[in-house]
Amino acid sequence: MADLELSIAPMHRIIKKAKAERVSESAAQALAEALEDIGIKIAKEAIEYAMHAGRKTVKSEDIEIATRKVVEK
Amino acid sequence: MADLELSIAPMHRIIKKAKAERVSESAAQALAEALEDIGIKIAKEAIEYAMHAGRKTVKSEDIEIATRKVVEK
Repeated sequence: MADLELSIAPMHRIIKKAKAERVSESAAQALAEALEDIGIKIAKEAIEYAMHAGRKTVKSEDIEIATRKVVEK
Repeated sequence: MADLELSIAPMHRIIKKAKAERVSESAAQALAEALEDIGIKIAKEAIEYAMHAGRKTVKSEDIEIATRKVVEK
């Protein structure tokens, strides 16, 4: 994807943090794409929560509630 | 969080991509923390899939199936 905001190097580090022995380049790329999609999904939910609260500014509390909605616990 | 792999600037850009008017600094920080947690969760699942397939290398297909497991559709 040409317009990804997330870079690949931190993806390698995140997968290594999870204790992977080896990580393919395409796996790091796939994680960047997945996290960017999830980030946009969370942000869209967060904007809804901010608007519902009568705010134009997205705050951390909006992100936190939106994250709980998007990710299975 | 001191040891975050994700930086804050791309989080602002992701929230702006979702069409937010304004984004607080703490919201960008919260998104970095959320995406890093989700990334580690996806990576841990992906490692399980790789091991189950008899591989030591995490591949993109492992990340993709793990993402579908972690994120609600």
